[in-house]
Amino acid sequence: MHLLLILSRHAEAYRQLVAAAHLPELRITTAGTASDIEPTAAGADLVLGEPSLIREALPRLADLRWVQATWAGVEPLLDPALRRDYILTNARGVFGSLMSEYVFGYLLAHERKIFEKRESQQAGKWDSTHPGTLRGKSIGLLGVGSIGADLARTAKHFGMYVKGYTRASRGCADVDEYFHGDRAAFAADLDYVVSIVPNTAATVHLVDATLLAALPARAVFVNPGRGNVVDEAALADALQSGRLAGAVLDVFQQEPLPPDHVFWRTPNVLITSHTAALSVPADIAPVFIDNYRRLLAGQPLRYQVDFEAGY
Amino acid sequence: MHLLLILSRHAEAYRQLVAAAHLPELRITTAGTASDIEPTAAGADLVLGEPSLIREALPRLADLRWVQATWAGVEPLLDPALRRDYILTNARGVFGSLMSEYVFGYLLAHERKIFEKRESQQAGKWDSTHPGTLRGKSIGLLGVGSIGADLARTAKHFGMYVKGYTRASRGCADVDEYFHGDRAAFAADLDYVVSIVPNTAATVHLVDATLLAALPARAVFVNPGRGNVVDEAALADALQSGRLAGAVLDVFQQEPLPPDHVFWRTPNVLITSHTAALSVPADIAPVFIDNYRRLLAGQPLRYQVDFEAGY
Repeated sequence: MHLLLILSRHAEAYRQLVAAAHLPELRITTAGTASDIEPTAAGADLVLGEPSLIREALPRLADLRWVQATWAGVEPLLDPALRRDYILTNARGVFGSLMSEYVFGYLLAHERKIFEKRESQQAGKWDSTHPGTLRGKSIGLLGVGSIGADLARTAKHFGMYVKGYTRASRGCADVDEYFHGDRAAFAADLDYVVSIVPNTAATVHLVDATLLAALPARAVFVNPGRGNVVDEAALADALQSGRLAGAVLDVFQQEPLPPDHVFWRTPNVLITSHTAALSVPADIAPVFIDNYRRLLAGQPLRYQVDFEAGY
Repeated sequence: MHLLLILSRHAEAYRQLVAAAHLPELRITTAGTASDIEPTAAGADLVLGEPSLIREALPRLADLRWVQATWAGVEPLLDPALRRDYILTNARGVFGSLMSEYVFGYLLAHERKIFEKRESQQAGKWDSTHPGTLRGKSIGLLGVGSIGADLARTAKHFGMYVKGYTRASRGCADVDEYFHGDRAAFAADLDYVVSIVPNTAATVHLVDATLLAALPARAVFVNPGRGNVVDEAALADALQSGRLAGAVLDVFQQEPLPPDHVFWRTPNVLITSHTAALSVPADIAPVFIDNYRRLLAGQPLRYQVDFEAGY
């Protein structure tokens, strides 16, 4: 018999979804915060929940065997000072379609001049300015995991040329050209660049003054990934000086973005307040359920995180 | 030897594109307006150009054999008082991808709350309101020709359910469910409805109070097709009374939209001033070139218009 601790702001929604699957040999206990965990729940061998809450609970979970995170990013659990004597799996394969809607929603808004057309309308003006098109434009993906693969597929649907920047992987057939290490060659002549790399030691400030200087002035940067990937001062500088056409930013080094942050008054920045791909219990619960069945069957769990690599 | 009259505001661009194809047995003459046509050009057997300009020139073209329109809509040439003793082909297969960018740009703007997020940003507010998603939503296509097929394909890419309303055709595999005649069943429970039917006697006011009343209040209507399809007073009434969530309108019964038109002050209307899918010489010239090669080879021309049906 297994004991699952659901530790989440959405604990009740997760409990109902997991219970509805009628999984064998499973008892469930829930808590909305680490301080709400009942003493008996400390014997849980399985945990499903938010990495930030689980971090607090880790010292108490003597029998811990497997943690299924409800997020893609698991930074709170990667601190080298924390225990690593359990299997950590994250949420993958569920954010790709939401990320595509976010990224291509803003790319199309840019091409179709959606904001400019609305301003013309508000001024009572019949504005026959020609919009642009994604067809024939190029997009660069910083990181080509499961989310990057979904973005690449959508980019090909709209007739774009796709460049991928990875450490070594080349597995996505929708990427036309791969780059490893040479950021200037990757950035050259891009219309759009999207960061979806995880937050690791290797990706801190991957988007810095050097990469930004290699982009053409017409380029737009989109970041639905992780805030630490961006040198924010360098990005603000590139935007303010007109060396970059725009930025659509969902994540930041500090969230909520502080009221005095330069991005609030940087031209051509759109701020979307970490809503690009919100994890919804209905999407994440199936990942746990599938992995639990694998656990019972003695099969390897999907989406295991390498504590050293950080993803 | 054939003589081609290019009669277009973009005559020089078309001339260069057609000349670059080195088509055999073809002389080319150009004019930017009907009154600029040189006397020798009246002997042209082929015409490439804008239907509104060609209409004026028709009486003078004694040897006319084939007109390739640069537009999808050829209403100016369908007047029963005009001659019909020539083959008329229109531009098809080139607007689908632009139409997809237009329609899905606005659908994603609606789901992602792109305008609302920007307003929050301008107020300095970290707005973590959840956006919506196209996944699982339904879209209804009024008309499933080549443009509708492209919209259906994009809708399936984003995980939507696709309903198609046609006279009789059922040829598109990306349409989940077809309707003919029963507009209420078609409209029931739609999240989005897009009109791309041509302007014919059969489609005038196809979008009227009856169809609008059958849509749920959350629905958004998008019209990148033809203005005459819409009963504009009924649409304004549905929007003003909150029985319809929004409308994105590219075409109108009168264009430019008159300054005193109700749509300028109707809530939740977005006006895009007939720019959804602008014909570009680089896209249209290949349609003429392909058809000219068919003409020389004695093959049937593509995209022939039935003067009676109107498309």
